[in-house]
Amino acid sequence: MQLGMVGLGKMGGNMAGRLRDKGHDVVGFDFDPEVRDVASLAELAQRLPAPRTVWLMVPAGAPTLQTINQLADVLESGDLIVEGGNSHYVDDRRRADELRERGIAYVDAGVSGGVWGREEGYGIMVGGAPEDVARAEPVFTALTPDDGGYVHAGGVGAGHFVKMVHNGIEYGMMQAFAEGYELLAASDIVDDVPGTFDSWREGTVVRSWLLDLLVRALREDPELDGIRGYAEDSGEGRWTVQAAVDHAVPAPAISASLFARFASRQEDSPAMKVIAALRNQFGGHAVTRSTDDDSVQTPPS
Amino acid sequence: MQLGMVGLGKMGGNMAGRLRDKGHDVVGFDFDPEVRDVASLAELAQRLPAPRTVWLMVPAGAPTLQTINQLADVLESGDLIVEGGNSHYVDDRRRADELRERGIAYVDAGVSGGVWGREEGYGIMVGGAPEDVARAEPVFTALTPDDGGYVHAGGVGAGHFVKMVHNGIEYGMMQAFAEGYELLAASDIVDDVPGTFDSWREGTVVRSWLLDLLVRALREDPELDGIRGYAEDSGEGRWTVQAAVDHAVPAPAISASLFARFASRQEDSPAMKVIAALRNQFGGHAVTRSTDDDSVQTPPS
Amino acid sequence: MQLGMVGLGKMGGNMAGRLRDKGHDVVGFDFDPEVRDVASLAELAQRLPAPRTVWLMVPAGAPTLQTINQLADVLESGDLIVEGGNSHYVDDRRRADELRERGIAYVDAGVSGGVWGREEGYGIMVGGAPEDVARAEPVFTALTPDDGGYVHAGGVGAGHFVKMVHNGIEYGMMQAFAEGYELLAASDIVDDVPGTFDSWREGTVVRSWLLDLLVRALREDPELDGIRGYAEDSGEGRWTVQAAVDHAVPAPAISASLFARFASRQEDSPAMKVIAALRNQFGGHAVTRSTDDDSVQTPPS
Amino acid sequence: MQLGMVGLGKMGGNMAGRLRDKGHDVVGFDFDPEVRDVASLAELAQRLPAPRTVWLMVPAGAPTLQTINQLADVLESGDLIVEGGNSHYVDDRRRADELRERGIAYVDAGVSGGVWGREEGYGIMVGGAPEDVARAEPVFTALTPDDGGYVHAGGVGAGHFVKMVHNGIEYGMMQAFAEGYELLAASDIVDDVPGTFDSWREGTVVRSWLLDLLVRALREDPELDGIRGYAEDSGEGRWTVQAAVDHAVPAPAISASLFARFASRQEDSPAMKVIAALRNQFGGHAVTRSTDDDSVQTPPS
Repeated sequence: MQLGMVGLGKMGGNMAGRLRDKGHDVVGFDFDPEVRDVASLAELAQRLPAPRTVWLMVPAGAPTLQTINQLADVLESGDLIVEGGNSHYVDDRRRADELRERGIAYVDAGVSGGVWGREEGYGIMVGGAPEDVARAEPVFTALTPDDGGYVHAGGVGAGHFVKMVHNGIEYGMMQAFAEGYELLAASDIVDDVPGTFDSWREGTVVRSWLLDLLVRALREDPELDGIRGYAEDSGEGRWTVQAAVDHAVPAPAISASLFARFASRQEDSPAMKVIAALRNQFGGHAVTRSTDDDSVQTPPS
Repeated sequence: MQLGMVGLGKMGGNMAGRLRDKGHDVVGFDFDPEVRDVASLAELAQRLPAPRTVWLMVPAGAPTLQTINQLADVLESGDLIVEGGNSHYVDDRRRADELRERGIAYVDAGVSGGVWGREEGYGIMVGGAPEDVARAEPVFTALTPDDGGYVHAGGVGAGHFVKMVHNGIEYGMMQAFAEGYELLAASDIVDDVPGTFDSWREGTVVRSWLLDLLVRALREDPELDGIRGYAEDSGEGRWTVQAAVDHAVPAPAISASLFARFASRQEDSPAMKVIAALRNQFGGHAVTRSTDDDSVQTPPS
Repeated sequence: MQLGMVGLGKMGGNMAGRLRDKGHDVVGFDFDPEVRDVASLAELAQRLPAPRTVWLMVPAGAPTLQTINQLADVLESGDLIVEGGNSHYVDDRRRADELRERGIAYVDAGVSGGVWGREEGYGIMVGGAPEDVARAEPVFTALTPDDGGYVHAGGVGAGHFVKMVHNGIEYGMMQAFAEGYELLAASDIVDDVPGTFDSWREGTVVRSWLLDLLVRALREDPELDGIRGYAEDSGEGRWTVQAAVDHAVPAPAISASLFARFASRQEDSPAMKVIAALRNQFGGHAVTRSTDDDSVQTPPS
Repeated sequence: MQLGMVGLGKMGGNMAGRLRDKGHDVVGFDFDPEVRDVASLAELAQRLPAPRTVWLMVPAGAPTLQTINQLADVLESGDLIVEGGNSHYVDDRRRADELRERGIAYVDAGVSGGVWGREEGYGIMVGGAPEDVARAEPVFTALTPDDGGYVHAGGVGAGHFVKMVHNGIEYGMMQAFAEGYELLAASDIVDDVPGTFDSWREGTVVRSWLLDLLVRALREDPELDGIRGYAEDSGEGRWTVQAAVDHAVPAPAISASLFARFASRQEDSPAMKVIAALRNQFGGHAVTRSTDDDSVQTPPS
């Protein structure tokens, strides 16, 4: 089918490539003249026959919002926007309502798989009305692997909700491996930490794609010396915790994973300053860095 | 090679079967006359040519300790015990020292894979002196899948240490899926929770063997109606947290996973009684079940 | 000074009483004819000389919003509303902007202390423009204890933000006592758990008002037999976690406290059903309640 | 009464001083010749009339063990040792058994209160046989405040078990204040963070001795600029978590507090290196410090 793709960066560019390989006709727009097929959203709309399908793959937040607004001006009633970025599911629902008044349909699609998706296929989680989703289904199945990877999870917002939860789970799984790695590395009993992870790829309960990636990373850098323990978080990890709180769902492991990332980015921890200050107070010390507890004693007699 | 196998239950029996399929000569002992080849440990020792290799696959704790003590009496200098159960790594090291005085070698082997290992192969993590491990290596490689699954992780205790950490990671991964599931199920935005997990098996970051198992469970029981939210924990989850504490390694996600299991088994929570009692106190209520907070107000005017 | 008080329930009624004791002239409105001084908000406005100060003490959410809207219609430019309920700080700021257009000033006041505040005084945390806060300061200082308990924390919203964080801290402190209690009660080494808490009231690091309340509760019911481990949460605990996530502040203890409350209210845990289902899967059991782990073995040989 | 005090450091020295103020006859030993009354444990034993009571106040672990062994050689049947340091309760029970064979009684006493105890009195939690505890009771009551602070919690080990749990609770309370502080400081809505904590000292639910200390710390250094967020932990925090795990007691808040201290002392986090490495892997980046997530996109078109 014919498809407009807005945003031809690492994700959008790879996805456009995969779609073309599968025989789809993709007209791409990007700010970068080197990679785009058309020079404006207006030209994109002109190049596509109505009813049009346009896939958005731009950064979440203001860029996505802005692009949708611009698209709404050049599209017409009967067209369909597929928001493939990392929008919040609540925003999806509000936008869909607004676009519906102009006759433009809206489907949200969470995309997983990173740079590997170009060859292996992406995981695609879609939310929208059945008739809207059906229109873009050839694109969804072309993007996913042959034997799975696609779900129509529910109405508008469900795709990004599901992708959000996927990322929350991903946070917890990564943190589990991370804690296990640190314990193995801290112990003096294990001689071969990379080999241990490698062996787990077969026969064990923890075998997984993330383990494969970790083994790959440890082959390149067996003690991770070249990597700082500094971890960004995306909006989706935060949203998962906030959605859990909204729904009164206990999420201790996922929130622990998120908080560990927050802490990893702090030069110094205000919270731990308080702990140090309190220990100073009840230990009676004036020093900056306390090494005493409330029951500290002098050297033994 | 020839091998004695003590303990022919679900794990030991399957392992003996796999070893025989691979051409090894296994002499098995069990309390159950139906499944055993020999009627006593003494007979087991007689049937095996020296130097003997005997694999233990009996429950952790007292049964394992007792069996090792009995075996030590019927084995002789030069023989090798492979402890394949779930011993604590500290116990391994003490036992190996004791057995070494009698000339008996000791290797610890952590085994992962459950009932699936019979066909797919097990993950095997081994600790011991290189010369001792080498003697049993044909058995290790026969138990593992063709292309991996085996690691000699370090000296005595390293096998069970690594298996312990593996299980700790497993706890965290399972908890991540569990929290994600609960959030998906709690939301009214997702229509197809089982289908969502199914779609994740391809193309996503969370694809894993545990996900495969979860999809399998959801096919059998899409809302898990037939299952109570009651989860046992094995020693290894507890030991992972305790080892993390011993090594000053933060393990918030793994410990959260363990604590969630503890809580799942409580009829009522003494801790939450305290919370309820305190809320009653500052809310000034005499009732058993408080539904008030410290700033609760009367109906509006 | 003269003050209107809307909402004469447990909190508002006690506060009106304390203010009268301190010499203030309080005109109260409530839906309950038994306790009110005036029969409508319109009459309340008539009874107060301009510029008026009206304190709201009604449930958070819709009741507060509705009351503010009704008040705005009977008040006039120059009047002041003090929102003493549990509003979210973001709502405060939006409302203040709307009221400002009508010339009505808005101050938010977080109130702590529960039923004890009537005698002991309340903690009052205020947000608003200095000139607005100054107008109600006689009321704030009358409500608080003689030697403290009052802070003007910042602009509009700061009072409720601070009260929200206060409650978050309260959650963490309560949870700490709760976990400690459960461990003491679970141990067979401690003969006198209530006496232990009682002793802590003097000389220790944990002495606190919450400890006093816990001792009081344990005197009434030494093993808390009459209390279910079922704990509600107020919006402020949830908001604290969500604000922490918004600000990238790690809040592991406070969020653990919140999640423990969520879990306490569940008949059965969907998350733990997943754990049980997964254990069933890799343990190969068809049973509903699994008691096996992935390395479970048969009885020893 | 007459009492030997071994260890005259910050804790032992202050306690000896308080006991003398209360009319007790304390004979002190320390390695420091400046502060001691006798030059050896043998001399200490000679100076005290039988049956003797000797209080130990030396660092936990090897120093305490060594001192008990040396004391056992100079004391005689009928004497009593009070272990006032931070011993593990399991060690108490083993030692008491060993000393009982020599006729020496053993009582364990957990001491809380830090440098403030000299004037305000200490919290004292005692474990031991009733007749042994009774012998030292005049000392316990002299050390505690006039109106409380003393508990005989159970048999040998109960004193240190209770003190351990006290410290676990202390960890959780400190962490709660710490997280609250960080959130207040991170927000741009609160103008007066130190004033906020100060106001909480009266009328609120969180009023406590730890809050008093925090207010004191913030008066000295309102933004804690002179303090690093580096926090030691004592054995008792770790033991609390391990005892909770042993007793299957969920302790999410206390363990979160302990893990936060562990993390505060790390130059770089091995666990977070894994997170960064994994993000690099699925984001396809070779760089050391990843700032990409699995769904990262290029700048919008």
